[in-house]
Amino acid sequence: MTTPQRQMKLGLNIVGNGAHAAGWRLPEAQANALDFALWRDIAQQAERRAIHFMFWADGAAVRHSAKDDEQLSYLGRIDVWEPLTIMAALSAVTTRLGFVASASTTYNDPYTIARKFASLDHISGGRVGWNVVTSWSEQEALNYNRERHMEHGLRYRRAEEFVDVVMGLWDSWEDDAFIRNKETGQYFDPAKLHNLAHRGETFAVHGPLNISRPIQGYPVIAQAGSSGPGQNLGGRIADIIYTAQKDKEEAKAFYRSVKQHAAANGRDPDAQYVMPGILPVLGSTEAEAQHLMDRLQDLIHPQLGLSILASSFGDLSGYDLDGPVPDALEDHNGVKSGHEQLMRLVREKRMTIRELYRMLAGASGHLVMVGTPEQVADRIEDWFNDRACDGFNLIPPFMPGGSDAALNELVPELQRRGLAQTEYTGTTLRETMGLPRPAHGSHRRRSSVPRAAE
Amino acid sequence: MTTPQRQMKLGLNIVGNGAHAAGWRLPEAQANALDFALWRDIAQQAERRAIHFMFWADGAAVRHSAKDDEQLSYLGRIDVWEPLTIMAALSAVTTRLGFVASASTTYNDPYTIARKFASLDHISGGRVGWNVVTSWSEQEALNYNRERHMEHGLRYRRAEEFVDVVMGLWDSWEDDAFIRNKETGQYFDPAKLHNLAHRGETFAVHGPLNISRPIQGYPVIAQAGSSGPGQNLGGRIADIIYTAQKDKEEAKAFYRSVKQHAAANGRDPDAQYVMPGILPVLGSTEAEAQHLMDRLQDLIHPQLGLSILASSFGDLSGYDLDGPVPDALEDHNGVKSGHEQLMRLVREKRMTIRELYRMLAGASGHLVMVGTPEQVADRIEDWFNDRACDGFNLIPPFMPGGSDAALNELVPELQRRGLAQTEYTGTTLRETMGLPRPAHGSHRRRSSVPRAAE
Repeated sequence: MTTPQRQMKLGLNIVGNGAHAAGWRLPEAQANALDFALWRDIAQQAERRAIHFMFWADGAAVRHSAKDDEQLSYLGRIDVWEPLTIMAALSAVTTRLGFVASASTTYNDPYTIARKFASLDHISGGRVGWNVVTSWSEQEALNYNRERHMEHGLRYRRAEEFVDVVMGLWDSWEDDAFIRNKETGQYFDPAKLHNLAHRGETFAVHGPLNISRPIQGYPVIAQAGSSGPGQNLGGRIADIIYTAQKDKEEAKAFYRSVKQHAAANGRDPDAQYVMPGILPVLGSTEAEAQHLMDRLQDLIHPQLGLSILASSFGDLSGYDLDGPVPDALEDHNGVKSGHEQLMRLVREKRMTIRELYRMLAGASGHLVMVGTPEQVADRIEDWFNDRACDGFNLIPPFMPGGSDAALNELVPELQRRGLAQTEYTGTTLRETMGLPRPAHGSHRRRSSVPRAAE
Repeated sequence: MTTPQRQMKLGLNIVGNGAHAAGWRLPEAQANALDFALWRDIAQQAERRAIHFMFWADGAAVRHSAKDDEQLSYLGRIDVWEPLTIMAALSAVTTRLGFVASASTTYNDPYTIARKFASLDHISGGRVGWNVVTSWSEQEALNYNRERHMEHGLRYRRAEEFVDVVMGLWDSWEDDAFIRNKETGQYFDPAKLHNLAHRGETFAVHGPLNISRPIQGYPVIAQAGSSGPGQNLGGRIADIIYTAQKDKEEAKAFYRSVKQHAAANGRDPDAQYVMPGILPVLGSTEAEAQHLMDRLQDLIHPQLGLSILASSFGDLSGYDLDGPVPDALEDHNGVKSGHEQLMRLVREKRMTIRELYRMLAGASGHLVMVGTPEQVADRIEDWFNDRACDGFNLIPPFMPGGSDAALNELVPELQRRGLAQTEYTGTTLRETMGLPRPAHGSHRRRSSVPRAAE
């Protein structure tokens, strides 16, 4: 077997103390997510395996749909790091690993976000990325002076403008603006300062940013919305597209759609990577892997299961857990794309309530792959070679065993097949990802070209 | 000489690439403030000297009053770290040093601030503090959707409510709320969850915070406003009072006032520390120190000098630099307390324009102490023993020479005299500062007691 030319991009996707909602209950799991030494070890391990980046999902609330505090108390993922602070700390104890974090365009100011990611980029030597999210939970609204969550279309209009402001602020200074001339006393070249002076529908931001242009020009941009407005935004701005895909043919169709959106926005489709999340549950035999999966699923407390379903189905505590799933709530202002996929699946498979919450508790709609490292690598290789994706976000179901298995068993198998890199090329995240460094002003120039002309 | 019982608190106060506006021009200075290795070395050096904390001043803008970009280009302190990210990174390469950062109550949301400082406190093992500022510059307003800077009184009303919300969010969970019971599947004890459900004049914040109560209960709170509303706020909430004091008798009066405000708010006056900033300019002889000071002052470009004066005096470029300072602008919505002190001084000393900008460029109104380590230690000891303060923020005029001298020459001299600690007692910042750990709910309980009853 010859080494393929094309290698996959790999991220390690962190969801609190593990993505499986009951993973923390395993005897071998670390249930407390706030243990810095644990994350330092994981980051350093990911770096030894030449993983491209760690990715931190995020929300600015305890996001849940439990009916009361008692039911909520079975949810184990609510005591978590704030991603930008933990990323900064982990960047100080690593040298090549990238760090990507979600930050909401709905509950932040663009100047703050531009500044923090620029600072992180300089601290880390150019190793950070921003996952642009618009947030979906009612709880975040209630923590930020709002009565209700902002409507989906409005969120995306705000997000489009927000991202333009952030990227404009990153262009406040040309790359060589700071001359620091000790002889003349001039600190910067005034011809290379560009005040943004933005006045738009939602934001008025003058600039300049009080920090140099990021080392990467712009930090890597990730985006995860698979709805229409989400794909439009992603096509225009993203270097990485996150997605939850459970079916290979649907994933291939999504992949083609993403690449078309990229091209329509004047971007190189080969420099925008589609990276679905997968939750690997590994064992040295297939039976061992399945046994681990069964242990995880059996640990889902029914109260936890019901609380997970409540956002789409309301309070189902009066129903038989082993009876059919009733119709979902109509008004749903959250993650549209995931929701529609879910309802299709429930109807096709005639799922029971218990089956549904067992499916969701594991991976929040992501694909679960249960098997030996070789078996999971086979499926991964098939998706990758069939152009269903450009790589994967590996989502550990619990910590640290889940990430240990992914990093020390699955990734080496991918490396043996030549599918994953064994060492980093370059030092910045753009370099290790094979992404070009955007020239000063390139976002504005690209955005100002009418699409019809392309 | 016996070792005094009372030892001073010491901070290292970082202002970009050095607090003297022309310090970066010294041949031996590091002009680029964005060099992570430089700051790692300084932090580790400060820790070897058992300094209590590094303190990062901050503003969310290039704050200046230059008349145009050409004049602005002589200002050397505009390309700086975002404090929370650099603090997080430095906390990962230290174990005892504290980190205090300014964060504005005018340009942030309380949920974001509560969360970030809680996360930092957990990352660092309880070593962070928040310097509550209301911001003073027009430029910050223009970066955050405002036409004008918020009026001084309004800023402080917002700040009072903001701090109550933040401290309330830190009390979302009792210290032992997260039981993580693997047997029952219950992650927390619902009786120990406290939703804030705040609805006030400016903020509506439901909570809970999505992270455990900080290791210190509340991170250390610093506050620097010396105006009436500033002292009221500080008296109510602060563990540390920053101040710029240039005259020992005035400093003593301020010190007494602070302690009275503390007592009137039901706080222990001995557990609230007054820490003025001082800018030490050191040499192995007095002449050498004075020579360094002269070199620094001679490097102030007149364009830089005029831009520094413009905020209080408007554009003075038509005036003789060696003539008298004209009257200040009337309408001043910035740092009130510093401004009044300044005008008094100008009138008393009949200063010229050049003399005034030379004074301000050095230390932004802080006391400059020029001399040998012994001479500066003498003055420091005198202020400390005369109850003008409880310690000092040492402000290096340039990097790294200014901090090297402070840490390796001045601090050891204070240690030899028994005035400064030689090693840390405890691990959290509250422990090393001799501050009690606030019990859950103590801020709310203290704030709800009518002042007259005390």
